[in-house]
Amino acid sequence: MRDTYILGVSMTRFGKFLDKGLKDLAYEPVWNVIYESKIDPHKIEIVFVGNAYAGLITGQESIRGQVMLREVGITRIPIINVENACASGSTAFFLAHKAVASGDVDLALALGVEKLFCDDTGKSLKALSTSSDIDIEGRMGVLFAGIYSMRVRAHMERYGITKEQFAKVSVKNHEHGALNPYAQYRNRVTVDEVLNSRMIADPITLLMTCPMGDGGAAVLIGTKEMAKAMGKRPVRVGASVLGSYGFIRKDEPNITSRVAQKAYEEAGIKPNDIQVAEVHDAVSAVELFLYEELGFCEPGESGRLIDEGITWLGGRLPVNPSGGLTAKGHPAGATGLAQITEIVWQMRQEAGERQIKPVPNIGLVENGGGNVAGETAVVAVHILFGE
Amino acid sequence: MRDTYILGVSMTRFGKFLDKGLKDLAYEPVWNVIYESKIDPHKIEIVFVGNAYAGLITGQESIRGQVMLREVGITRIPIINVENACASGSTAFFLAHKAVASGDVDLALALGVEKLFCDDTGKSLKALSTSSDIDIEGRMGVLFAGIYSMRVRAHMERYGITKEQFAKVSVKNHEHGALNPYAQYRNRVTVDEVLNSRMIADPITLLMTCPMGDGGAAVLIGTKEMAKAMGKRPVRVGASVLGSYGFIRKDEPNITSRVAQKAYEEAGIKPNDIQVAEVHDAVSAVELFLYEELGFCEPGESGRLIDEGITWLGGRLPVNPSGGLTAKGHPAGATGLAQITEIVWQMRQEAGERQIKPVPNIGLVENGGGNVAGETAVVAVHILFGE
Repeated sequence: MRDTYILGVSMTRFGKFLDKGLKDLAYEPVWNVIYESKIDPHKIEIVFVGNAYAGLITGQESIRGQVMLREVGITRIPIINVENACASGSTAFFLAHKAVASGDVDLALALGVEKLFCDDTGKSLKALSTSSDIDIEGRMGVLFAGIYSMRVRAHMERYGITKEQFAKVSVKNHEHGALNPYAQYRNRVTVDEVLNSRMIADPITLLMTCPMGDGGAAVLIGTKEMAKAMGKRPVRVGASVLGSYGFIRKDEPNITSRVAQKAYEEAGIKPNDIQVAEVHDAVSAVELFLYEELGFCEPGESGRLIDEGITWLGGRLPVNPSGGLTAKGHPAGATGLAQITEIVWQMRQEAGERQIKPVPNIGLVENGGGNVAGETAVVAVHILFGE
Repeated sequence: MRDTYILGVSMTRFGKFLDKGLKDLAYEPVWNVIYESKIDPHKIEIVFVGNAYAGLITGQESIRGQVMLREVGITRIPIINVENACASGSTAFFLAHKAVASGDVDLALALGVEKLFCDDTGKSLKALSTSSDIDIEGRMGVLFAGIYSMRVRAHMERYGITKEQFAKVSVKNHEHGALNPYAQYRNRVTVDEVLNSRMIADPITLLMTCPMGDGGAAVLIGTKEMAKAMGKRPVRVGASVLGSYGFIRKDEPNITSRVAQKAYEEAGIKPNDIQVAEVHDAVSAVELFLYEELGFCEPGESGRLIDEGITWLGGRLPVNPSGGLTAKGHPAGATGLAQITEIVWQMRQEAGERQIKPVPNIGLVENGGGNVAGETAVVAVHILFGE
């Protein structure tokens, strides 16, 4: 397997776009990555398209990528539709990376698009609920907010992490999102506002949750030679690891820890080498668990990282400089690729007002999806190196 | 890229199984391939799961593979849900083959499952209609039978192929299906019965079309060493090629011809080297076009192949010895893997009453899916060598 490089990254602004369809949301990021990487689009050899819910929301199932790429003008080559709930975009990236790493192709495109807003919020929520086992968890009526709230309460009891600390994650991510023109929410919030917003599933309040969103993102992966030729800072894929839930015993590391550990090994680094991370804060409280599961701190120590400003812009390890899912938004299939986009922008000094200084050289993306048997169904961790 | 081998193949009988869910349809073929290949299931490193319509029919979207494999007991490793309409199973096979060929993994599982029967035929038909661009062809109301009938009529006018010849394909495939215990339909039909059955879209009659079906199929792909160790005839993947529709000009080869040509080149053979083929006879008339597009004969000559018995069991090049989609059935996501299963069974002399003599050494699978801009959206061609 050879090294692969990210040639182009792009995302639409995330938000509520009732006038935009899947094709519109695909067109912009795909053409942006083609322009920025200065490649002949006919040289793209394979496309992986991540989307989770279009069949249930827009009615377009089955050949979503072929239909989205019709207007873009990408035809004839293999187009592969992949689905892994909220990690669909990362799954597309994983496969595009593998296709180039194996030498099978030189240029692979990963596209993620999601259209969650329609004329019916119930329809959107019902679609989101299909990211669990509908025969078991579905029949129990367990939805994501409920699952998260149980995890949050257990963590609070075990380690004494406070509601205020969870709220601070939301404050941080909104602060970051306010600096990001691609973010769905650009307003700032205070700890009091977060704690006093509508209760969703105690202790999770409305301002601790990510919004529904529409959006698209694309990442073009190629060879080292191509990356050198395009004139921007080459960003190498150090690791791309995907894993599934696994009926863990009480003493076993969970899915995120397992996948992250494998990614660190693949990249040949340790958690404390990471200089910037985009993680899956579907509920802002979860970001604290992720600090622990990704090895950014010891179990139970995550509250300190948010209190001491370590994971804020300006801190030692900024997490979710984009605003994360909480503020930037979370159009499921696009999220993983938008996370990668942010890391690449940071490494290339293209992050505008939210640019991390000094410019980071090693970044991590963690993207989760679905829920089976009480665990996240799919977790992807990617590690990127700015060269 | 190294050679890959098929270690295990399995399929459920195809049919109408209102009492079986996705999990049931996955369980049987996955455990069968594990048993027959004598591998430790913990050594499976990645799974690709093909399914097209579960989200719209059963309600399970988004993490279909993780949910199906829950009961099977395959967890933790990467599980990737792929979707390419009726070629979803072939797409899973393509990726599993590439994963082993690249050396990234030694053992990859491709699983295809589809549950089309539910309590509501309208719901099933509506799901099937999502395999075209719903904004364009969908709004025109063009369904598959209509698209096929236009192609059939054009071909009849251009080359003088007759309704009787199209009907004979159905007679042949039902004859073959009658010998296949895994086939949905095991009855024989006559040319008169086919022509006099209910008109669906002139000249396509009911007995020229494939039925809806439920079913599952699995293929386990590994290395040469593993294939040699398991004690059955090693079957090597000579080529696995996937392509998309492409707004062809009048003088250009269509998607099937393009993909097949690439597969022949990859495998280093010519069309007349093929000794057995399983092709996508969603409508039996299409099988004749496929003879021409796959290079089994010149354009317009396909009627002769069916008239002279060449593609019947006992002929020089048996096509669809399993009964094809027409008789064996067509649970979309499972079809491509069931086609591969039949070829492997034939090469291993495990095809029972429908065993081809002499035992074939070179086989081809063609699997199509969806429709965009008047062309099949996705075509996969795989070439297998019995060693």
